[in-house]
Amino acid sequence: MANEFRTTRRMEFADTDMAGIVHFSRYTVFMETAEHEFLKSIGTDIHFELDGDVISWPRVSVSCDYRRPSYYGEELEIVVTVTRRGAKSVTYGFSFQRDGEEVARGKITTVCCVCNPGEDLRSIAIPDDIAALLDAIAAPDQDSA
Amino acid sequence: MANEFRTTRRMEFADTDMAGIVHFSRYTVFMETAEHEFLKSIGTDIHFELDGDVISWPRVSVSCDYRRPSYYGEELEIVVTVTRRGAKSVTYGFSFQRDGEEVARGKITTVCCVCNPGEDLRSIAIPDDIAALLDAIAAPDQDSA
Amino acid sequence: MANEFRTTRRMEFADTDMAGIVHFSRYTVFMETAEHEFLKSIGTDIHFELDGDVISWPRVSVSCDYRRPSYYGEELEIVVTVTRRGAKSVTYGFSFQRDGEEVARGKITTVCCVCNPGEDLRSIAIPDDIAALLDAIAAPDQDSA
Amino acid sequence: MANEFRTTRRMEFADTDMAGIVHFSRYTVFMETAEHEFLKSIGTDIHFELDGDVISWPRVSVSCDYRRPSYYGEELEIVVTVTRRGAKSVTYGFSFQRDGEEVARGKITTVCCVCNPGEDLRSIAIPDDIAALLDAIAAPDQDSA
Repeated sequence: MANEFRTTRRMEFADTDMAGIVHFSRYTVFMETAEHEFLKSIGTDIHFELDGDVISWPRVSVSCDYRRPSYYGEELEIVVTVTRRGAKSVTYGFSFQRDGEEVARGKITTVCCVCNPGEDLRSIAIPDDIAALLDAIAAPDQDSA
Repeated sequence: MANEFRTTRRMEFADTDMAGIVHFSRYTVFMETAEHEFLKSIGTDIHFELDGDVISWPRVSVSCDYRRPSYYGEELEIVVTVTRRGAKSVTYGFSFQRDGEEVARGKITTVCCVCNPGEDLRSIAIPDDIAALLDAIAAPDQDSA
Repeated sequence: MANEFRTTRRMEFADTDMAGIVHFSRYTVFMETAEHEFLKSIGTDIHFELDGDVISWPRVSVSCDYRRPSYYGEELEIVVTVTRRGAKSVTYGFSFQRDGEEVARGKITTVCCVCNPGEDLRSIAIPDDIAALLDAIAAPDQDSA
Repeated sequence: MANEFRTTRRMEFADTDMAGIVHFSRYTVFMETAEHEFLKSIGTDIHFELDGDVISWPRVSVSCDYRRPSYYGEELEIVVTVTRRGAKSVTYGFSFQRDGEEVARGKITTVCCVCNPGEDLRSIAIPDDIAALLDAIAAPDQDSA
């Protein structure tokens, strides 16, 4: 099974800044949207219900390293990996590539939480079926040997 | 009494685009934030409770005319007026000025609605006390003569 | 020939606001990006060179009417039309549709300008070849009768 | 001398998302704007000229840890520090605080570059006078003993 999810994104005029390049803040949005596309691709979503609770994935950390500028009109490929699947948290890696060359590389860590309206957030163990979906993509190939 | 509300906003790097100017979409955010500052200045807010319902102001229309570009680092003055106070709706006018010269001019129309979670939006007559607050700023000077 | 251009856009988490719906300011970005996709579809782009000058299309006016809220994850269809092609300006119409139902309707007016770096903007007549491309999509069906 | 720069920022409606909190991507914009305010406070800016070259500070890395959600209408205090001043790069630290309690903590690393229009970016040693301005704020108090 593939250990990564790939999607693409076209850089828009509104993504650029007066330096003539895509503004660095936009990559954090691109990462989140790629994460959501990944979640849908494995059959889950950013919100789901479990025993009457709303479960979601608040983010606790984001980082991004910028190696080359990106420009209006370019289509970047975004490679999503599950770099760590913990008991309660997941860290995703994102590689932004243009013609196979990496332009930026980032990470987002999210925590599985009960997010009921009007209640404080409460972290929980990732439900087994979701953990299995995440592990399927995270599992290194040798595991299937 | 003054028939307008004035606030200021500094243009940020992230507001700009590759043309080197503030991106036109940002003015719609600037208008909304100025509207919210105006609402607070007259003693109300974007949400309030009335007889157990949550009342808010969904926007039904926005427009903006751009006369001159605006640039990173500039502080624009934003003049807010109530250009029309209807039974259920309010139209605000916004003039963006730099050193007294207008760079853009826009409008937002909002409708007073019951916005209870999980229910469809339902428009209602603007409560009398809120209407009075809006009319105080909308009233032309001759009314006080 | 078709008198409209159609594209789609998926509503992202970052497009939403605390009211649980897509923030009204985002539609102005969606319109601009659809305009750019349209320009590419007819064989031109947001910038081009003419006799050594950089020609582009600064926007002078935008408006949008909101009829229904739109939500995270929805794919909206965006129908772009050329509602008026003047000597120097173009007005585009945008209809945002979900399952054939209009959720918003907007307009953008742009002006053909010399946009050389370091010079003031200067409006010019739309070059004949570009005007012909725009008219091809703007032309009413009876022209082909 | 103070080893930090403090500024404030009011959370706007457009900063929020459907989870009812300020969207995580917005903090990267807040950090950049606070960095620019800091640069102006010490007497420099995001662009300056040196021997006919345009010098600026492209960012090569950003990160942010989110400890608590932040909400519409709140005013956050942002504490900016120079956490590392290298020969060519500067790392800024940002602490977002609400009533003295940290809600988020981030970092941005920028590199001093020649950014002439039409040329590739080229990193250079931070000019001595700018380095001195940065060191004044970065210097720990004991250094002056």
